[in-house]
Amino acid sequence: MSTETRKQMSLGAFLSGAGHHVAAWRHPGANAEGILDFRHYAHLARIAEDAKFDMIFFADVLALSDQLDTAVSYMSPVRPEPIVLLSALAAVTEKIGLTGTVSSTYSEPYTIARQFATLDHLSGGRAAWNIVTTANRGAAANYGKERHLEHHLRYERAREYIDVVTKLWDGWEDDAIVLDKAGGIFADKSKVHSADHEGKWFNIRGPLNVSRPPQGRPVVIQAGSSEDGRDFAALTAEVIFTAWQTLDEAKAFHDDVKARAVRYGRAADDVKILPGVFPVVAATDKEAQEKNDYLQSLIHPAAGIALLSGMIGHDLTDFDPDAPFPELPETPDGVKGRLHLISDLARRESLTILQASRRIAGARGHWTIAGSPVTIADRLEEWFTGGACDGFNIMAPYFPGGLEDFIRLVLPELRSRGLFRTEYTGSMLRDHLGLKRPANRFAALRQAGEPT
Amino acid sequence: MSTETRKQMSLGAFLSGAGHHVAAWRHPGANAEGILDFRHYAHLARIAEDAKFDMIFFADVLALSDQLDTAVSYMSPVRPEPIVLLSALAAVTEKIGLTGTVSSTYSEPYTIARQFATLDHLSGGRAAWNIVTTANRGAAANYGKERHLEHHLRYERAREYIDVVTKLWDGWEDDAIVLDKAGGIFADKSKVHSADHEGKWFNIRGPLNVSRPPQGRPVVIQAGSSEDGRDFAALTAEVIFTAWQTLDEAKAFHDDVKARAVRYGRAADDVKILPGVFPVVAATDKEAQEKNDYLQSLIHPAAGIALLSGMIGHDLTDFDPDAPFPELPETPDGVKGRLHLISDLARRESLTILQASRRIAGARGHWTIAGSPVTIADRLEEWFTGGACDGFNIMAPYFPGGLEDFIRLVLPELRSRGLFRTEYTGSMLRDHLGLKRPANRFAALRQAGEPT
Repeated sequence: MSTETRKQMSLGAFLSGAGHHVAAWRHPGANAEGILDFRHYAHLARIAEDAKFDMIFFADVLALSDQLDTAVSYMSPVRPEPIVLLSALAAVTEKIGLTGTVSSTYSEPYTIARQFATLDHLSGGRAAWNIVTTANRGAAANYGKERHLEHHLRYERAREYIDVVTKLWDGWEDDAIVLDKAGGIFADKSKVHSADHEGKWFNIRGPLNVSRPPQGRPVVIQAGSSEDGRDFAALTAEVIFTAWQTLDEAKAFHDDVKARAVRYGRAADDVKILPGVFPVVAATDKEAQEKNDYLQSLIHPAAGIALLSGMIGHDLTDFDPDAPFPELPETPDGVKGRLHLISDLARRESLTILQASRRIAGARGHWTIAGSPVTIADRLEEWFTGGACDGFNIMAPYFPGGLEDFIRLVLPELRSRGLFRTEYTGSMLRDHLGLKRPANRFAALRQAGEPT
Repeated sequence: MSTETRKQMSLGAFLSGAGHHVAAWRHPGANAEGILDFRHYAHLARIAEDAKFDMIFFADVLALSDQLDTAVSYMSPVRPEPIVLLSALAAVTEKIGLTGTVSSTYSEPYTIARQFATLDHLSGGRAAWNIVTTANRGAAANYGKERHLEHHLRYERAREYIDVVTKLWDGWEDDAIVLDKAGGIFADKSKVHSADHEGKWFNIRGPLNVSRPPQGRPVVIQAGSSEDGRDFAALTAEVIFTAWQTLDEAKAFHDDVKARAVRYGRAADDVKILPGVFPVVAATDKEAQEKNDYLQSLIHPAAGIALLSGMIGHDLTDFDPDAPFPELPETPDGVKGRLHLISDLARRESLTILQASRRIAGARGHWTIAGSPVTIADRLEEWFTGGACDGFNIMAPYFPGGLEDFIRLVLPELRSRGLFRTEYTGSMLRDHLGLKRPANRFAALRQAGEPT
């Protein structure tokens, strides 16, 4: 197959402070001093843009940790708030997409619609919102709630949230502003529409005081793998960030979600699926394995088990760390789907609690590949051409070293196979991802003579 | 008096899209096309920094307008969201302070504490939060409220809001992070403190997942002139942005608020008072007056009356515009203090509704000085040396032209009198304003052996 015509993958650079490995801050290749320093992130964003990644991506958590002492002592639980950080990074980049995570459970649609619309304007069409529903207990305690919302209700709220936010983004038609200085007419009032949203969760009048974003709407990203999460993503997400350990699981998820999207009247290609990958790169497979072993050796046991506990919604700190990973029920506190994934892994490989914690502590449930550039490129190609995904969200173990290694060693290998771009072909994130610009719902109604 | 030893004023550059004049977008010196373009704001922030302003300052409104059609047709009611905009501007400036307005009525303390703490870190200690309680009806309708909160309750909530936000900012002591990579200890857990706040309005556990900001706490700015507002400001504000038309009124306010601050156990100098000034600058007083007349001629009557109505909380659109400005009661919908100020002005100068609307439409209730550089410097010096204020928040009629004029024409005049700096002497906003770095409340308790 000619490399010119080959379908190319999308790549996100999932950034964090010291790195995605729980002990990254101890690694000599990590800039642990830079966790709250703008220069650290500006460097990461610039090298990701030079390398032509589709986007940089930031997660978020709304609490320090449910296990305060462990997190503070052994992890590196401080982090910049993503809206502020991404906005600052918009000013030092030109083409790369800017994805920030915001919870639909602990925020207000009018605020979030404005912030992402503003980011889209100021960045020239590069904003994306990763909407999460937030499962951790600590978040509830920081937002005045006795308990966090039950899983199903979080998704119900999220669904209505997206609906009202897209109404707000569509409030100004693309050509509403006429700027007739001589006649004194700023905008055509027939092309500016209130949302007038009245729902179970929100009553929001609108319109937004920001005109329609350059991308029409910022890109909407989601990460749910539960039944509710899949359905929500199939209905509204444009990119799905997901976590799988095997090609078969990833492909089953891919096919299921795309089929659901089609049932909702969307094209399969309107939804891009990007699994997380945690790559540990070195010149040879052996060196990469040693590098991974070294990273694992940096994990304090208490840190690993605390992280595992938070992820599955069961506190394992009082269990015997050397006992086999137990059978546990799903709880409303866990990240749905994550307990299932970890239980399967533990059963398959007969892991103890400590071993399980070390296995997930690095990649936090995402797919780890420790290997040479050729090995890593082979595995990514296998998933990509095997129909498991449209690309990957790259979770470097530590920053900046791990991302620099991936760019220097793996990207040339992907490029030589025609699997990744050498230049941006557009200037907006939708261009990079191959996503259509959404039509304005009010413009269509107005043109059809319907009440808007 | 030697210029070297003279007390110098603080100056804020209060920025907006096209300008502070309601018809600014029609003015040839305004970049109306740039209202949502980052390059426009980057230019303004850079020239303000080159001119050594203490800070740039952004207001905010949480709704388009209560009079949608008028605003959309005749005003320029789109604007960037300030957290996103300021964060982006942090990346293209180095010294100037960055003030953003956020409402305490329609936001969550944990979110806002994180955003300003992050901005303070990423900008190297330049963040300030202008806390407002939000009076306009449209905001309530965009946040699912039947009516907005009653005035007294808004201030009660704001008071508790500030208290919990400062607890969150203090959650990490300055030296909590030890970053002992070899020993695997990230931070000293005895120096990280939950807020454990339980109040009438908020229950917030904390701690923040952002360590203590470089300034200790971002600077807190307020703008209330009502009884509740004055008291709140005297208790907690470090800078007060205010609106007065005469030296006597300004001085009375200054003396009253500083006396209240002293009664609360603060030093008079812990609170800086910066009235808004709307300067219309030209080579001569006559040219400046013509320039002002030209600006006023650009105001569409409907736009002026709509703006006046929103400000005072009474809809005047169905009144005869040529009737005298009526006697009106304070309403919970108006900006408290603003009706009083406008009524006094109208009575003093026997203004009709239309005339009153034109008088306030430009400066929106702030003090207008149209004159030569010497005239403007004389008036500013008179207020400053007359004990009415510690400096000014400069509200240029249009951007960038109006700010460029002020910098080019008025600042040299102030500098020649020794009234304004020629260089920054520090790198943080507290340095520019002459404000102390706040002590950490938990560190003091811990050192005293008290429970934290």
